[in-house]
Amino acid sequence: MPSGAAVGPVCVFEWRYGSLEMRRLLSRENLVDAMKLVEVALVEVLEELGVAPRGVAGRVEEAAASVSASEVYERERVTGHDVAALVELIAERAGPEAARWVHYGLTSNDVVDTAWALVLRDALDLLVERLDAIVERLSRLARETRGVVMAGRTHGQHAVPITLGFKLANYVYELARSMERLCQLRPRLLRAKLGGAVGTMAAWGGRGLEIRRRLAEKLGLPVHPVSTQVAPRDGLAELASALAILAGQLDRLAVEVRELARPEIGEVWEDRGGAVGSSAMPQKANPVTAERVSGLARVARSLVHGFLENIVLWHERDLSNSSAERVLVPHLLLTLDQMLLDTLSLLDRLRYSPERMRENMERTMYTVLTEKLLYMLIDAGLPRPEAYRLAREAARRALEAGVPLWEAAASMPEVASRIPAGRLREELAPERYLGQAEALVEEAIRYAERVRGGCGC
Amino acid sequence: MPSGAAVGPVCVFEWRYGSLEMRRLLSRENLVDAMKLVEVALVEVLEELGVAPRGVAGRVEEAAASVSASEVYERERVTGHDVAALVELIAERAGPEAARWVHYGLTSNDVVDTAWALVLRDALDLLVERLDAIVERLSRLARETRGVVMAGRTHGQHAVPITLGFKLANYVYELARSMERLCQLRPRLLRAKLGGAVGTMAAWGGRGLEIRRRLAEKLGLPVHPVSTQVAPRDGLAELASALAILAGQLDRLAVEVRELARPEIGEVWEDRGGAVGSSAMPQKANPVTAERVSGLARVARSLVHGFLENIVLWHERDLSNSSAERVLVPHLLLTLDQMLLDTLSLLDRLRYSPERMRENMERTMYTVLTEKLLYMLIDAGLPRPEAYRLAREAARRALEAGVPLWEAAASMPEVASRIPAGRLREELAPERYLGQAEALVEEAIRYAERVRGGCGC
Amino acid sequence: MPSGAAVGPVCVFEWRYGSLEMRRLLSRENLVDAMKLVEVALVEVLEELGVAPRGVAGRVEEAAASVSASEVYERERVTGHDVAALVELIAERAGPEAARWVHYGLTSNDVVDTAWALVLRDALDLLVERLDAIVERLSRLARETRGVVMAGRTHGQHAVPITLGFKLANYVYELARSMERLCQLRPRLLRAKLGGAVGTMAAWGGRGLEIRRRLAEKLGLPVHPVSTQVAPRDGLAELASALAILAGQLDRLAVEVRELARPEIGEVWEDRGGAVGSSAMPQKANPVTAERVSGLARVARSLVHGFLENIVLWHERDLSNSSAERVLVPHLLLTLDQMLLDTLSLLDRLRYSPERMRENMERTMYTVLTEKLLYMLIDAGLPRPEAYRLAREAARRALEAGVPLWEAAASMPEVASRIPAGRLREELAPERYLGQAEALVEEAIRYAERVRGGCGC
Amino acid sequence: MPSGAAVGPVCVFEWRYGSLEMRRLLSRENLVDAMKLVEVALVEVLEELGVAPRGVAGRVEEAAASVSASEVYERERVTGHDVAALVELIAERAGPEAARWVHYGLTSNDVVDTAWALVLRDALDLLVERLDAIVERLSRLARETRGVVMAGRTHGQHAVPITLGFKLANYVYELARSMERLCQLRPRLLRAKLGGAVGTMAAWGGRGLEIRRRLAEKLGLPVHPVSTQVAPRDGLAELASALAILAGQLDRLAVEVRELARPEIGEVWEDRGGAVGSSAMPQKANPVTAERVSGLARVARSLVHGFLENIVLWHERDLSNSSAERVLVPHLLLTLDQMLLDTLSLLDRLRYSPERMRENMERTMYTVLTEKLLYMLIDAGLPRPEAYRLAREAARRALEAGVPLWEAAASMPEVASRIPAGRLREELAPERYLGQAEALVEEAIRYAERVRGGCGC
Repeated sequence: MPSGAAVGPVCVFEWRYGSLEMRRLLSRENLVDAMKLVEVALVEVLEELGVAPRGVAGRVEEAAASVSASEVYERERVTGHDVAALVELIAERAGPEAARWVHYGLTSNDVVDTAWALVLRDALDLLVERLDAIVERLSRLARETRGVVMAGRTHGQHAVPITLGFKLANYVYELARSMERLCQLRPRLLRAKLGGAVGTMAAWGGRGLEIRRRLAEKLGLPVHPVSTQVAPRDGLAELASALAILAGQLDRLAVEVRELARPEIGEVWEDRGGAVGSSAMPQKANPVTAERVSGLARVARSLVHGFLENIVLWHERDLSNSSAERVLVPHLLLTLDQMLLDTLSLLDRLRYSPERMRENMERTMYTVLTEKLLYMLIDAGLPRPEAYRLAREAARRALEAGVPLWEAAASMPEVASRIPAGRLREELAPERYLGQAEALVEEAIRYAERVRGGCGC
Repeated sequence: MPSGAAVGPVCVFEWRYGSLEMRRLLSRENLVDAMKLVEVALVEVLEELGVAPRGVAGRVEEAAASVSASEVYERERVTGHDVAALVELIAERAGPEAARWVHYGLTSNDVVDTAWALVLRDALDLLVERLDAIVERLSRLARETRGVVMAGRTHGQHAVPITLGFKLANYVYELARSMERLCQLRPRLLRAKLGGAVGTMAAWGGRGLEIRRRLAEKLGLPVHPVSTQVAPRDGLAELASALAILAGQLDRLAVEVRELARPEIGEVWEDRGGAVGSSAMPQKANPVTAERVSGLARVARSLVHGFLENIVLWHERDLSNSSAERVLVPHLLLTLDQMLLDTLSLLDRLRYSPERMRENMERTMYTVLTEKLLYMLIDAGLPRPEAYRLAREAARRALEAGVPLWEAAASMPEVASRIPAGRLREELAPERYLGQAEALVEEAIRYAERVRGGCGC
Repeated sequence: MPSGAAVGPVCVFEWRYGSLEMRRLLSRENLVDAMKLVEVALVEVLEELGVAPRGVAGRVEEAAASVSASEVYERERVTGHDVAALVELIAERAGPEAARWVHYGLTSNDVVDTAWALVLRDALDLLVERLDAIVERLSRLARETRGVVMAGRTHGQHAVPITLGFKLANYVYELARSMERLCQLRPRLLRAKLGGAVGTMAAWGGRGLEIRRRLAEKLGLPVHPVSTQVAPRDGLAELASALAILAGQLDRLAVEVRELARPEIGEVWEDRGGAVGSSAMPQKANPVTAERVSGLARVARSLVHGFLENIVLWHERDLSNSSAERVLVPHLLLTLDQMLLDTLSLLDRLRYSPERMRENMERTMYTVLTEKLLYMLIDAGLPRPEAYRLAREAARRALEAGVPLWEAAASMPEVASRIPAGRLREELAPERYLGQAEALVEEAIRYAERVRGGCGC
Repeated sequence: MPSGAAVGPVCVFEWRYGSLEMRRLLSRENLVDAMKLVEVALVEVLEELGVAPRGVAGRVEEAAASVSASEVYERERVTGHDVAALVELIAERAGPEAARWVHYGLTSNDVVDTAWALVLRDALDLLVERLDAIVERLSRLARETRGVVMAGRTHGQHAVPITLGFKLANYVYELARSMERLCQLRPRLLRAKLGGAVGTMAAWGGRGLEIRRRLAEKLGLPVHPVSTQVAPRDGLAELASALAILAGQLDRLAVEVRELARPEIGEVWEDRGGAVGSSAMPQKANPVTAERVSGLARVARSLVHGFLENIVLWHERDLSNSSAERVLVPHLLLTLDQMLLDTLSLLDRLRYSPERMRENMERTMYTVLTEKLLYMLIDAGLPRPEAYRLAREAARRALEAGVPLWEAAASMPEVASRIPAGRLREELAPERYLGQAEALVEEAIRYAERVRGGCGC
């Protein structure tokens, strides 16, 4: 990289965001290693089939082992082509006889797409591993807090009581759906592309199908049954969509925390230990991890479009996907990598306050139970519109007078004549109107466990 | 629609694009019908379980049957809420006793999301049916043209020969992958959402799970195991992504036709019968169907983003997804509907010229066989770089002198000394360098047939 | 529209969203009227220049006046082309002599693009008029509430006090920036496109420039100095971007209201009179107008991408922009139309509670003044890190002990020894730390007034 | 960056794409330098106003000069905050007295946003400089080729003749429109944000407006008249939109070249000297520069969405824009940087063949003049429909019989009786139907020159 030598990194994923593990997977070094695997495996197959003479595979393997990524990129500056550079270097070192079989019948994108399938497999494993850890923690936390009663909120308003566990169980389910998607797309995405310049395997003559089968097997990948010069780009677009959807779900969880951590609400927050809040406002405990997740989700959503456009290649391919993917693919994976790590860290530091949850329901005078009052009145024989009117009036009175809903209801003769005050007081309590919340926590976890166990993919 | 009465339609899907069938599915009438199914099924379940007295379901069903969509929308102008309007109308007509059980324990979005699951099921069936017809025709056409030799093109340049059948087989495979996706997403998308105001089923008391199970069964849908007030929005985002990917594939096919129909190429085109080409240029035969597909693909890609943002709802839901989906969902489905219909029509009118294909290869002096020459030289014992140099030189000479590649090659002593002119002439012919093109056509069709046969989804 | 006759509208902008005014502008009727203006103006110019004989313009004008939009669309079903249909109808009725000059030298897109420039001018005027009304109301409200003190919030946390007026002034400024953009793009967007089939004006022979100049003048539009068959599509893409940015700003205002209307905050809300909140939860006062704005903003953002892709037309144009724009343009304008109307209605019904604002600051123990304490300590001679430590400690104590910040600070000898308790009590009050909030309200309004006054565009 | 030390760069803009110049502007080093400018300028202003004692500014300036970017990022790993790290380092080195005035009254984003305004100013200058060079070359080339006749193409089909110069003039105009936009957005984007924690300038007491004015003046930037904690994000969204539009225009030019370079067309191409075309197909001359431009345009379009979402910040700001912009801003600028450089290089190596242009029109038998024939017939007195029918028939015959249009027309008695064969032959020649093409080249250049001269921005 001599041209860039004088200046520090410009991409925030080089140092601030993304794990070292993911960066390694996406490094040029690792990609060159994967490309070498393909080149070597080809010569092995040719030797096995008797197309190439015995012994050449060993020499090619040795030659390949000796080529470093930096040599490839050095040479590329001469050839203007990275795969050509790699092939040249291997061929030069393998000796003239073996050299003949290097890259035999391949086109650059046989190597590039297949190497990327290997890299993506590992990258996807890493992301799914992190996602699995999140689902696991969320499941545990959901069970742990299945009895922690709080206001369910719709439109940002108090609606009907739930438990924190129930709230979290929804995320368990939603994220499990993402795991499912990431599982189902693998056989479409993680395939070797082997077919030569336009996909016909012409240079391999009559043995194309056999060579392809063996080569893919050796690499541990299924193969695209047919292709142009490149694997069809819908596979990457599907990956991008699935990851953007996942990003949206993590964003939703992050927004949940950011909202519940408002000082007026104070029900859930991320514990930041003694971290500095703000250079000007020492009092603040800002939900910065969750905010970072929300910000990066926008990046993930943004990138989808480029992948979608990349599908529309001309004929047996044009090169336009190449530059786009050089940018889009690593940045997308690193974005999700950081988001998942942030979410894990957020969950580890998640704190909640049952007291604030109770207080907040108290502040709206337990009108979070108005629906329950409505059904008590219906069950007491009132027609729905009448019951609706009374329940609403009770809620209005409770809020205006600053008394609990049961008390406001008890003060209304039309209600009191049907439901005794004692029952109102007993029943109009959040913990008495949780429906199947506890069972549903288990349903969500069960769904997730089925997916995590393999889901038949 | 009194407020809109004075003015014709503003949306092009009301009249120009989209089939009547799809418009019917997406009409307010059909949505109201689906909502009525949910409301009626609920009372049936309540009656079956002995929660509601015998006979009420019948009355509710009758009442529902009598309510028209226009009445609902008329009433909505009073209530400001469409589900509330429907519930009121049914309740009013079912009589006071039955009225109590109408909408019992439901929240509006139990009805809306579940009704949409029913509508989407039909809409998806319709799209998949059209897609299946496309794959079927493409498969047939691919087989039919498996022997029609033409230049494979990469970067818009002649690369290596293929057959038209092989080209089309790639589309068969790509579209089959879309069918697979549309199949796999169904169990995530097409589920009943039944859980009341925040998903806990509180109003159904201890029988929530039982009511939910029966209700979903009656509607022929699986159920979301857990939900907030609404079904998780990743399902719709996945649908949008899958359809945008499909749109990209159809766009790619359309671009294929638009390019090959250029007068300088003239290999493939859409037969437009005697249609007027242009108000000013009578000579033109414009690929307008394919161009429309390309244009609508941009709409499909565009809409994805709104679906992705919709995932990020607050807490147990906020309403922001509602207005967005009212626009996004029908327009996305209608866009794909039109694109699939256009593609079908395009395939029916697809014409090709083997003569022009041959001519075009002749014009580049059969340099489309340069790769073959390269391998002939390698197989004759030359090291790859040397073979590359010679093959390239032969191609250069052919193009400059305007002679076929074999002739140019034969005129080079370094080549001729290794491969006799006769063999060059014989071998450097497009039909001799098709590799496994024919077999690959079958592989693609086999893949598609497996998917079309059900693919285990 | 016989094919659509049996089914109600599928597009929500036909009836639920969008004003009748905007629908009229975007109706086929209005577009046909605009196209007729172009066709008639052409013949007038030809007559004026003596190219066409005297009297023909009158006959063409009369003929055009007699053609209705429904006739055009009826005829289109035969010709497959809307402009061709219009031209035919006018020509038929104008009589053979005049007919010769109808559409003379034009290509369809001269008519379509120029007619759309006329329609867009009116549509943009309508949107800007609504935006201006919003800015006007916001300005008034900002001045009115310049003394209403509340917590400024960053990260959702209490930061430093502001006034409601100051908060609103930011929206005044932001929206004024949008007005500026909408003003500056007009001369790029609202131009006649007149140049014939590929833009050379070949059919007008040597008088092209003169005809073009007069024709544009007659229509009251400047002209694109050069064009292909169509006006360059960056103009529409710029419009879409500017409107999506505006949509984002309205979304931000909507989120402001939705957040501040949470029951735990209760500082600002939309008064919904007696509207039904929810079919199941009678107590709720949901910010549904603001939520609709947020939802529609997603639609606006989504649509941008299609416009961006449309720029990339082939050569002197391909048709792919046409189908895309038939969908994108009207839906974008209607989306903004509804969003602006909703925001206006929201502002009319906006309510606020100074009491809740005060209460909320009290609940965080006036730690919203911690920055002020920090600077008091710095001004008292402490180094910043030391001052930071003390201010933070005071905030911590205030929150833990539940006492106001001044009291907590006064209880710390390191603070009290430097700043007497009386001064702490007096100074650590929100209304004493508003900086230039009031003056900045005026700066924002001044900026907006300059823009509203014309801003030199 | 110790955590990243073991692995090479993952972002392609570190080495493959983007100029060293742009990378330097976007480097952490340069950003830290810009932030130091803001911090130092503040203390200078405070000293000038007598708020801070004389001499402190000098000490702060010296201290700041001694702080390196790597020290800041080292320290950030302790503080978790980059601006805080910088402030600490400067304060430590400036000595206790001066330290008090460092960052006095500022919030981090006063520094970040204002520093970015400085960086963006330079980055924008660099991009506009490149764009200007492109417009200059295109203008020159357009003039140079104003007489090079070729087929104008619509729908990919031959339409009406143009000149290469006329074609290029359209790009001159389109790109000039982008220059205009980039000029007009500057005063909205390139402003200092100075207002403290929530924008009220509270920490500066009564002198806020004065301090702000002087500070902005010193930095050579206008100031946002009002702001929250951050500058409004519509400025960046506008930049992103304008750059994505520009990217689309460059993409359009790239597609133009890629299409015209097809071997069947061969009218225009990029000269690649002796570069290797393909590892498998030595004969190819692939338009790889243009393809890269097309690919990167997708990246630019993609990124817009993230910027649009960033507008919707909560209240006086939330942090979500921060992580998103750390990714989006530099990558967007680097993408455009590379695209502009590629386009410049493409233009330098652009070649064209008047012979192939002529040949291609010959191959469609000069039917590119059918419109002219149509108007000749109309001018000869035929009604348009009749003229249209005849012109079309002539074109059909020409294509079928393989004779030039004039000959086919001359063979039709209905035509020949009205227009003598000699005139047909003379007039139905491409160079006789160029309309105002030459004058329009000048109109486009004139427009561009006006913009390049400053356009009043």
